[in-house]
Amino acid sequence: MLSFKVTAESGKARAGVLETPRGKVETPAFMPVATQGAVKALTHEELEGMGFGLIMANTYHLSLRPGIEAIGRLGGLHKFISWPGLIATDSGGFQVFSLAKLREVTENGVAFRSHLDGSLHEFTPEGVVAMQETFGSDLAMCLDVCPPAGAPPAEVERAVVRTTEWARRSVAARQKLPGGLFGIVQGGVDEVLRRRSAGEITGLGFEGYAIGGLSVGEEKEATLRTLALTAGLLPREAPRYLMGVGEPGDVIEAVAAGIDLFDCVFPTRVARNGLALTRQGRLVVRNAPAAGEDGPLDPGCSCLACRRYGRAYLRHLIHAREIAGMRLLTLHNLAFMRDMMEDARSAIRAGGFEAFRRERSAAWRAGPPDAEKG
Amino acid sequence: MLSFKVTAESGKARAGVLETPRGKVETPAFMPVATQGAVKALTHEELEGMGFGLIMANTYHLSLRPGIEAIGRLGGLHKFISWPGLIATDSGGFQVFSLAKLREVTENGVAFRSHLDGSLHEFTPEGVVAMQETFGSDLAMCLDVCPPAGAPPAEVERAVVRTTEWARRSVAARQKLPGGLFGIVQGGVDEVLRRRSAGEITGLGFEGYAIGGLSVGEEKEATLRTLALTAGLLPREAPRYLMGVGEPGDVIEAVAAGIDLFDCVFPTRVARNGLALTRQGRLVVRNAPAAGEDGPLDPGCSCLACRRYGRAYLRHLIHAREIAGMRLLTLHNLAFMRDMMEDARSAIRAGGFEAFRRERSAAWRAGPPDAEKG
Repeated sequence: MLSFKVTAESGKARAGVLETPRGKVETPAFMPVATQGAVKALTHEELEGMGFGLIMANTYHLSLRPGIEAIGRLGGLHKFISWPGLIATDSGGFQVFSLAKLREVTENGVAFRSHLDGSLHEFTPEGVVAMQETFGSDLAMCLDVCPPAGAPPAEVERAVVRTTEWARRSVAARQKLPGGLFGIVQGGVDEVLRRRSAGEITGLGFEGYAIGGLSVGEEKEATLRTLALTAGLLPREAPRYLMGVGEPGDVIEAVAAGIDLFDCVFPTRVARNGLALTRQGRLVVRNAPAAGEDGPLDPGCSCLACRRYGRAYLRHLIHAREIAGMRLLTLHNLAFMRDMMEDARSAIRAGGFEAFRRERSAAWRAGPPDAEKG
Repeated sequence: MLSFKVTAESGKARAGVLETPRGKVETPAFMPVATQGAVKALTHEELEGMGFGLIMANTYHLSLRPGIEAIGRLGGLHKFISWPGLIATDSGGFQVFSLAKLREVTENGVAFRSHLDGSLHEFTPEGVVAMQETFGSDLAMCLDVCPPAGAPPAEVERAVVRTTEWARRSVAARQKLPGGLFGIVQGGVDEVLRRRSAGEITGLGFEGYAIGGLSVGEEKEATLRTLALTAGLLPREAPRYLMGVGEPGDVIEAVAAGIDLFDCVFPTRVARNGLALTRQGRLVVRNAPAAGEDGPLDPGCSCLACRRYGRAYLRHLIHAREIAGMRLLTLHNLAFMRDMMEDARSAIRAGGFEAFRRERSAAWRAGPPDAEKG
């Protein structure tokens, strides 16, 4: 019910088409994050207008509010939020480990208290698959254990063992997912554990594979090394999803390593704080120099913000904390990500991804070094 | 440079057309409030899409940030904010009296400290006209003195005297307004003072007249009585603007008294707090009953929120404090105001405003009594 086809390769980078009964998405693709069922500051019309057909929602947040039962009663997540396109959902595991209180991991699953009201909940591999089946998720994730950067080797190994065991139970629990189930590879930045996890997870035969446990605070060099290693251990014919990476420079490197799917709050979160992603690098709109203040954020961009509004007005809106400012920068940053992924696909199809990578990485790194990053 | 024509009357209610070199607006009309140059939570495209051609911006706020000089350098307010439609601006006097610190009224004007950074400023009648000329305001207001409800008669009288004197100086100071200058009638809820203020202000021959000093905390009965009195003292051939009134029931009463223009943050402010204005009365979306939760906010509405999204999702967005929720309710509430004004104009043209007034007032008052109002 989820098909994926690699249509072009350039080095290790690949272009492809991912398809479920709900529609097609060209890869590599960036998935805007709709944590609570809405991409922050945007409406679905705007996402559709920008050409996004796949968004990422959050099982942890939606299970706490409005709750799985409410979403089921309303006909599933697509119907509840009025989004006819594809929806990927994570397992909620990452949020349990980062947001929830008093969590306790057992063989059975993970018990935790809601960060909203302290109520007690338990996520199990089977429960998490069932929740995503109630959602009707097109790309569902297995519950995994994601240790923080710097966790001792024994803890990382335990996470690998448990992630594999939970992945096995997830496969067994699956009943009626409309799309595909993704297994998640863990193993921190340890080569042996990554190889072991990738081997065990791919051995279970998922429709797609996610790389978890990266960009959780480790050194950038370790991220890139582990990413390249892990991507190479995943089957060519399945989509590869790098969880939580969305800084433009990192995305380009990950595409070079053979990653197909990305999600991250980076472009939308920094937008709300006044940072624009541009073809000339990062632009701190709050501090945008007066020179050229009539011009658009990025002369190469065709988004609404760049078509109509000047930097002086956008800077004013950010200073004045107007929602319109957050909206226009969010639209711009997502248009930037969309364009970058489109350009990446074109470069792969033309067999010139390595040149594209060099050119874009240089432009991106040319941004002001003091720019806000998160 | 501002023309106004009454095209139909029904009782004291009138329909008309207001025109400046920038365009035409049919009255009675509600002006969305763009305090800092943006209607909160919306973009200009959305206002245009809803058919709004006239918005109200705030001289006090814009003079403090980004500053008159910056706006002048960028070519005026329309160019700075990229809004080609009409813009009305108030004099800033009301905000000086309600927001600023350490204000001191002298014969010359009012000195105050900015609520943003404590910096010292002075507004004079001449300066306020010049600021609005720099903006290029289509509907500009004279600086006035607006006493709070319950001010002693002597203070209200002093405000009337000073408002007239400042109005005279405003007329003399005028050099290059592209549209019209409005005189403001004060006088609290005192009939004698209202008659005196209206006589003095209309004697100066403005293109339009604003009624100030109402809806500042006085009893509703006194508002309506004073409103009816004052509207009747204004020349038929000039537009009449009731400042700061925007609750649907009050707007209908004011149209019945012969008012043509309204501005108020009510519809947009309550939207961000989760209150929807509907043909069935007020709807507290946060508490919307589960029954019918798939349905739109208002089945009679054609706004984006009502066309696509159900109450359950909108309620979820409001609970989750998502900007999308504030946006969709703001769009809805402004569409409600637009539709109500359009219906009022139709009723006036058909000579049946009194029936319309009875029907709408009843529907509006039928809303839940505990609904949040401000």
